[in-house]
Amino acid sequence: MDDKLIEVPRGLAGVAVAETAISDVHGAEGYYQYGPFSAVELARTASFEEAWHLLATGRLPSADELAAFGARVREAQRSPELWRVIGSLVHGAGEASVGPLAGLKAAWPLLSAARGLRPVYDLDEAGRLADAVLLAASAPIVLAALHRGAAEPLPVLDDRGLVANYLFQATGEVPDAARERALSAYLIAAMDHGFNASTFTARVIASTGADVASCLAGALGALSGPLHGGAPARALDSLDEVGAAERIEPWVRERLAGGHRIMGFGHAVYRTVDPRSVLLKEVALGFGGARVEFAVLFEETVERLLAELKPGRELHANVEFYAAVVMELCGLPRDMLTPTFAVARTVGWTAHVIEQARDSKIIRPSARYVGPELVA
Amino acid sequence: MDDKLIEVPRGLAGVAVAETAISDVHGAEGYYQYGPFSAVELARTASFEEAWHLLATGRLPSADELAAFGARVREAQRSPELWRVIGSLVHGAGEASVGPLAGLKAAWPLLSAARGLRPVYDLDEAGRLADAVLLAASAPIVLAALHRGAAEPLPVLDDRGLVANYLFQATGEVPDAARERALSAYLIAAMDHGFNASTFTARVIASTGADVASCLAGALGALSGPLHGGAPARALDSLDEVGAAERIEPWVRERLAGGHRIMGFGHAVYRTVDPRSVLLKEVALGFGGARVEFAVLFEETVERLLAELKPGRELHANVEFYAAVVMELCGLPRDMLTPTFAVARTVGWTAHVIEQARDSKIIRPSARYVGPELVA
Repeated sequence: MDDKLIEVPRGLAGVAVAETAISDVHGAEGYYQYGPFSAVELARTASFEEAWHLLATGRLPSADELAAFGARVREAQRSPELWRVIGSLVHGAGEASVGPLAGLKAAWPLLSAARGLRPVYDLDEAGRLADAVLLAASAPIVLAALHRGAAEPLPVLDDRGLVANYLFQATGEVPDAARERALSAYLIAAMDHGFNASTFTARVIASTGADVASCLAGALGALSGPLHGGAPARALDSLDEVGAAERIEPWVRERLAGGHRIMGFGHAVYRTVDPRSVLLKEVALGFGGARVEFAVLFEETVERLLAELKPGRELHANVEFYAAVVMELCGLPRDMLTPTFAVARTVGWTAHVIEQARDSKIIRPSARYVGPELVA
Repeated sequence: MDDKLIEVPRGLAGVAVAETAISDVHGAEGYYQYGPFSAVELARTASFEEAWHLLATGRLPSADELAAFGARVREAQRSPELWRVIGSLVHGAGEASVGPLAGLKAAWPLLSAARGLRPVYDLDEAGRLADAVLLAASAPIVLAALHRGAAEPLPVLDDRGLVANYLFQATGEVPDAARERALSAYLIAAMDHGFNASTFTARVIASTGADVASCLAGALGALSGPLHGGAPARALDSLDEVGAAERIEPWVRERLAGGHRIMGFGHAVYRTVDPRSVLLKEVALGFGGARVEFAVLFEETVERLLAELKPGRELHANVEFYAAVVMELCGLPRDMLTPTFAVARTVGWTAHVIEQARDSKIIRPSARYVGPELVA
């Protein structure tokens, strides 16, 4: 490229690639907001559907709007095209089962084709929201059905919201209020968090005017990367590996001496305590029990040793550590932790797709060529 | 975000988001290069497989390497898992057929799951190239089979390369050398072109360490957007709509007076003649005939009127205009023009995924928050 290039930090760190009215992360102060509300406060008090409505439309719903929104979600989850797509994915795989994440990556474009969804470029605001709700509502159904290897999802319960239905679909058991509330807190807290790689992917794809399914499937691809959403289960693996309280300190010292990371600690944005971790620790403590006590002891030990061995780095438990503990307490098996993160983050992606689609400018950066010169 | 943000132009225009040794576009001078070679010169002289090898590995293959590479592509195209995925997509759709693009978006993650492909984060350079070749080789087979609605692809011909096999699979006829050569020129010219939205999407996803299929499927989603790859067929629609030579000038004047774009003219990067357009016009003229003469007259009239009505704008035929004409001459139906573009661009995406995967830094930008302030 001969034209003058604009130099920016590697990985676009700190580069304002867009304006957004959806949410904001305050890394230095340790809080983040969804519109005018503290995200963690919403996670404590709101329902999944309320937070979703806020992110997608910019305001909390009235009681009537909330009832209509919930009904719309359940209708989308009962769509015959959705159930046919799930059936074809489960049957088509034969002996070799398709995992939940790969299945959802495939299900979204297939559902979009089956329903004849159009590019966001050709839709108005209401049309984009309708497609967003249809596709995001399908995520928990697809993930749970593929986890169970069931061509036929369990029925969608009319008197329960998305979170309770997801737990029912994934585990086969109707959850109690405490588990529904705990998972809801996690899911709301995980819906959105700045211009992370998956959210940015959704926006780049949306900038081409593609259909909502293409944006979500691309974002899910990014989320499935080990450097993004692929690690929550590893925090539980660590707890299992350590096993007993007296082994925590030697285990952590050995890991750190070997130059290894401790999974579930440290974050790119927060230079103080991760507010999601504080919330989820509180949720976990609400359950109590030996597993939670062990997790708290593990966290305290890791933080103490990190402060001792890496002074000044401010390394704390991130969202993954207690998120994994909470999901386990809710009865979700280990292979459903990243899929459950995807259920939450899909809501954020849909909000960003709708916002990006209002901008007619395609995202098309440049690069510095460092390869061989042209031969004559 | 409280931290100091770095401001950049909208759509990241001119922002150097990475270093690359794969290719470079010289917008002011009107040429582009793949490594040390003029891309247009390669399109005139090289085979599809030679250009692919160059982009993916940085050098042209020896005769032995080329033979091995071609055999590897054919082996990938005959993979039983691939054919099973195609069968399940065609059968699963039932009455409602899945289009080629939606089908490929679903086929890649399903094939990745069926073959147990791993995240690029966990692979070495050879492993990444192997997955890239497997998935890119599958694209023409999937697209052609879904276009034909055939659960069983046609056999892969041993004595022909990817381009001839693609034309055979898509049309049911073994192509003559002229058509193979013409389509090959188009495909090579369209393999890569800077950090366009789909290529950038592939790189953002690769930066999370996700598997190659996630990167390609996300990129294909971006390519399917009307502002990116979704328009070549519209150039042919325009030719059909105009119909006769004497109607060209009034039709164009009317479109421009109404504030409409003429599909196939103008480009974001080139401020002079698009070198791909020059090449493809040459290829079209090699066929000759009334359709080509009409297209040339159309191009000349549009350029003359654009120069008259929008002086100083340098609006010329872009790659889409003659690409559509060439693909039509090769016997490809109109709904296969964007899929055929995808066959080409997939090669570029794989090269960029392999290059991006060498960088351990996730792409995670920021944004300027312009929403409501936090309520107390």
